[in-house]
Amino acid sequence: MPRSVAITQVTEYSDGRSRRLQDSLAGEEPLEIRVNGESFAVTMRTPGNDSELATGLLFTEGVIESPDQILSLQSPATSPEPNASTSNAAENTIDIQLSPSAPFDPAARRNFHINSSCGVCGKSSIDEVRSKLLRAPSQSAAFQISAATLLQLPERLSSAQGIFDRTGGLHAAGLFTRAGELIVAREDIGRHNAVDKIIGWALAQHKIPLADHALLVSGRCGFEIAQKALLAGVPLVASVSAPSSLAVQLARELNLTLVGFLRGKRFVVYSGDSRLALTNTEGNHPTC
Amino acid sequence: MPRSVAITQVTEYSDGRSRRLQDSLAGEEPLEIRVNGESFAVTMRTPGNDSELATGLLFTEGVIESPDQILSLQSPATSPEPNASTSNAAENTIDIQLSPSAPFDPAARRNFHINSSCGVCGKSSIDEVRSKLLRAPSQSAAFQISAATLLQLPERLSSAQGIFDRTGGLHAAGLFTRAGELIVAREDIGRHNAVDKIIGWALAQHKIPLADHALLVSGRCGFEIAQKALLAGVPLVASVSAPSSLAVQLARELNLTLVGFLRGKRFVVYSGDSRLALTNTEGNHPTC
Repeated sequence: MPRSVAITQVTEYSDGRSRRLQDSLAGEEPLEIRVNGESFAVTMRTPGNDSELATGLLFTEGVIESPDQILSLQSPATSPEPNASTSNAAENTIDIQLSPSAPFDPAARRNFHINSSCGVCGKSSIDEVRSKLLRAPSQSAAFQISAATLLQLPERLSSAQGIFDRTGGLHAAGLFTRAGELIVAREDIGRHNAVDKIIGWALAQHKIPLADHALLVSGRCGFEIAQKALLAGVPLVASVSAPSSLAVQLARELNLTLVGFLRGKRFVVYSGDSRLALTNTEGNHPTC
Repeated sequence: MPRSVAITQVTEYSDGRSRRLQDSLAGEEPLEIRVNGESFAVTMRTPGNDSELATGLLFTEGVIESPDQILSLQSPATSPEPNASTSNAAENTIDIQLSPSAPFDPAARRNFHINSSCGVCGKSSIDEVRSKLLRAPSQSAAFQISAATLLQLPERLSSAQGIFDRTGGLHAAGLFTRAGELIVAREDIGRHNAVDKIIGWALAQHKIPLADHALLVSGRCGFEIAQKALLAGVPLVASVSAPSSLAVQLARELNLTLVGFLRGKRFVVYSGDSRLALTNTEGNHPTC
């Protein structure tokens, strides 16, 4: 099994019945790109073709002008003893030595400010990516929502979206009470921005931590959305599409309820079933 | 008309016929967030609720712990004389003064490296976002592709995707010849990563600039995808979903052909019609 896919046990709720089954998740892991012995950038990516990713990124960033300026590249795939069974730091680090002819100026880059709107960008090490979560409040165990209420949230968010239907290009995020009442909805071309707008609204209302609220996002749920929700103290995040492997891992570690594929009469619970009132039935059905 | 939506003239190709019509685009503009008088970050966002976005981002980045640590916030919306009709620097800058009690350490942050995998992150000013494009090669005017060939690309990319159908969580990017032959396909949880992987592959093959190729991405096309394509010399970018306003603007400025909503028997051309062989018909139909 390539690490680009992770298999996990989930709870599927469909048409009034719930069952346990196996699901495939898109792999998401941080890749640390080191240039000339120093950390250059960390990016969340799906493992695979890592040397292409690093080379392409250095080119589009103007750090190299041609592949000839790469003297050596030590990638996870070319490491002498790759450990295919687990994800570890060595597998998520790529070391690149550049020729002096490359237009890379480490001194100049150090003066740049960072932009971390996507939750990972600007982080210089993998540890740093996780360090922010140390200050996350514990997620309320008391929060509960019924499956029936959860199923109504996408339609309510959709109704509040003035722009989405017209352009087809915007993401939406909505904050709901446990009764399913929409408190605030925000739209943005960036999913993470829509969530930051919600959190900024909540800060202004002195509602942080959002211990008694559910967050719904219109697209996929990656690491950065789970991270932002955790920092804001939201106990449940639902998305209408797929979560990433790292979002699920993070949610399980930090007791966040994570729901995906919330559409029609169906959703999949990836973490924190206890906050949902489900009908439990046995099931050994094929993967969803 | 709020700047969250931009209206533009496009060419729609549907079922063998093409027509000119008006289309709505999701607004995408850079927002520069300044903290204590210095540039802190630039993020691409849809204009609207900018102070919420900045506040939420500072909170999720650990720069503030509570809204009380914001002494003043001068946002585009609260500027004394906003200019609603045009996009300008003043409207895309937000100035925040923090209390000394905020855990913001400008000195420490200056030592961070940047990560620009999404094309904008890490940039400290709006000018810097555009400056990279100065080294983009001119986009080949000789490249041509037929509508019939273009319509076949999504299915060909889909067939090459081993992971996508299983997880529903991965983006794909594919590079095609003008005859519609798929040269290389890459998948990633990040759309920009899938494109960087393609460019990294092309670098290793010494195929840059990609003057005789079309790039297809599985999701939306924002500024960062258009930017990466331009830097790699790709003359045509197609996506199965919506482009952003800034992607369209950039494409028109730099002679990139930009196609959106490439699905079934239909697509919309936002820029560079001349590279497509279309059947021209008159049309005054409602917006798509």
